[in-house]
Amino acid sequence: MRIKDIRERRVSLADPMANAGISYLQMTASAVAIEVEADEKGIVTGYGFSSVGRYAQSGLIAERFAPRLMAKESIEGVNGGLDPVGGWASMMTDEKPGGDGDRAGAVGVLDMALWDAAAKIEGIPLWRLLSKRYNEDRYHDLIPVYATGGHYYPDGDLEALRDEVKSYLDSGYERIKIKCGRHDLADDCSRIEAVLGLLNDDGSRLAVDVNCMCSTSGETQAMADAYAPYSLAWIEEPGHPHNFELLAALTDYYDRPIATGENLFSMSEAYNLLSYGGLRPDRDMIQVDPALSYGIVEYANIVRMAEVAEWPRSQMVPHAGHLLSYHAVAGLELGAHEIAARADFVLGGLQDDVEIAGGAGSLPQAPGIGFETHANLWSVLNDL
Amino acid sequence: MRIKDIRERRVSLADPMANAGISYLQMTASAVAIEVEADEKGIVTGYGFSSVGRYAQSGLIAERFAPRLMAKESIEGVNGGLDPVGGWASMMTDEKPGGDGDRAGAVGVLDMALWDAAAKIEGIPLWRLLSKRYNEDRYHDLIPVYATGGHYYPDGDLEALRDEVKSYLDSGYERIKIKCGRHDLADDCSRIEAVLGLLNDDGSRLAVDVNCMCSTSGETQAMADAYAPYSLAWIEEPGHPHNFELLAALTDYYDRPIATGENLFSMSEAYNLLSYGGLRPDRDMIQVDPALSYGIVEYANIVRMAEVAEWPRSQMVPHAGHLLSYHAVAGLELGAHEIAARADFVLGGLQDDVEIAGGAGSLPQAPGIGFETHANLWSVLNDL
Repeated sequence: MRIKDIRERRVSLADPMANAGISYLQMTASAVAIEVEADEKGIVTGYGFSSVGRYAQSGLIAERFAPRLMAKESIEGVNGGLDPVGGWASMMTDEKPGGDGDRAGAVGVLDMALWDAAAKIEGIPLWRLLSKRYNEDRYHDLIPVYATGGHYYPDGDLEALRDEVKSYLDSGYERIKIKCGRHDLADDCSRIEAVLGLLNDDGSRLAVDVNCMCSTSGETQAMADAYAPYSLAWIEEPGHPHNFELLAALTDYYDRPIATGENLFSMSEAYNLLSYGGLRPDRDMIQVDPALSYGIVEYANIVRMAEVAEWPRSQMVPHAGHLLSYHAVAGLELGAHEIAARADFVLGGLQDDVEIAGGAGSLPQAPGIGFETHANLWSVLNDL
Repeated sequence: MRIKDIRERRVSLADPMANAGISYLQMTASAVAIEVEADEKGIVTGYGFSSVGRYAQSGLIAERFAPRLMAKESIEGVNGGLDPVGGWASMMTDEKPGGDGDRAGAVGVLDMALWDAAAKIEGIPLWRLLSKRYNEDRYHDLIPVYATGGHYYPDGDLEALRDEVKSYLDSGYERIKIKCGRHDLADDCSRIEAVLGLLNDDGSRLAVDVNCMCSTSGETQAMADAYAPYSLAWIEEPGHPHNFELLAALTDYYDRPIATGENLFSMSEAYNLLSYGGLRPDRDMIQVDPALSYGIVEYANIVRMAEVAEWPRSQMVPHAGHLLSYHAVAGLELGAHEIAARADFVLGGLQDDVEIAGGAGSLPQAPGIGFETHANLWSVLNDL
């Protein structure tokens, strides 16, 4: 069993949406196809597609990671089947430790394509393969989900924000996350209040993402004071992702849940978050994104590391709503799946056979990740 | 004042040397030229060349960072002259915080070329510009240096190691760093002992770099026990760069100096090293590499952050012996400069007008960084 070809293309994710820190007008992602010669199964193609927010990795893939995978004699595991772990080790040969940034996304999107191919070779959906390899055959029958959106519109229109949230509720979602933190706290509160009425004034159905905008614990305290009356589901990414000191000051001050980790990209970075961030396993959430963090091989180690540190899997909630993460949430029995619910967004929604109702999604059935059953993504990947 | 053109080329640094963790047979670096339209000075070309160990960044430069620099209307500062700080801010537009890996090297090599051009436009060597902008006009007249080398030879020959060290001593170096950690402690000790006699049995003239090979504090303790009798200058990079817990256990156990930080790439990562690593400002050394860590703009902030945390500049010792770092050590009055002393290595040695004697180097005089006066590097850069 051998890799026959690897193809990558840079795809625009340009979008007028913005968060508190960056614009998405120039955002890109990598679309990847890996052809595997799988003995009696013939050629099996695994696909990968980057998560959002960190750009395509065409250069790193072409310069380092695809050639190392291509050079590998065999991609077959000791017990047969395709072995993404061996592929991962090849990709990381002669890479120094630390510096987990863009390369974590480059390796992540290739690892994703290997897992897609591995599950297709076994003829099962990826969640099933992950449940077998990493979770003693257990998986979620219904996957808890929440809708993410509520970015800043160019004209700052609260009515458009309300309409967006209404459309998510109409689609079967029950929990929503919106963006805050771009302007001042009064603006944040008006955004929260614009939405809360649609959620029966139940703050536990609303999360806010401030995208790292606090730089002092004074700022986090002012934010906590302003948000506390709403009893929100969680506040996401309060400060710089490495600022564990600020995070610990916030969790010491504020009782409700905090979610963070989407801008950390390895087990060693996640370990330090748990060691120094003052986070509380009974309520806070770890949002490391498998697609941006060296893929499933590393992410499975992160989940295991967190369990050793007495964090239940229910507190692991991957960032960004990727099809890959949906399988991870289902097969590893994680806390919840984030869904970019806008149908026009290329990464929006889930596999076409998934049904959302009552705030939960069903299990996809196609072999592999199921990119072939997601119209937007398949229109890109089919072309590779 | 505007950027007219940016050119980049991937250059092989292939070398049979190896450290404890990786081989350098496939190593690459980026060579960069930035043409600046500098009003009455005409076209001034600034050059950059990556540091070693983290590969060329052709893709990231072409995909994100060069286009953002090219799009900038003016690169002139408010008081005239070229302003690398403004260029830096443009490059980091729409980049999320955290994830400081490959992109830190891509930005670093472009920042380097901007500083080279800025100093050339002022008609002064870079150390002079840095001393003016960041160090109240003070600088080192003589720059403390040490020779780095002593990698593993394919056939593990201790006599070749001794010959290499002898050649450095003959060239005017007085302190030496060699590699350890690839095999077992007995092998490490035989490497140390092979060299120590050449240094009058003075361990304070010998440092060892174990390239992150310890993974438990038990391993660091065994290493500390084995090395302690030699009273070495320092032990470098004992464990994984994010493993602050292991580092703190080692510094609690071992009295002699520890050096680390070359695999951390931003101020926020360096801040956490100082916060959690148990390092001691009176003896330990911080080895963040400016060329790999977003360049001089970020590095000047790291030096300032360390000073606020009561770390004297004498404890800042940049990794890898880059011509850029030599200017930083001279102009910011840092602790010492590492020199890859092998003349055949493309990054080896210093500017041709620098003289090494008595363990210190003189100030280079050419405007800018002086790549034009370094035969090996100029043969690559002249071709861009």
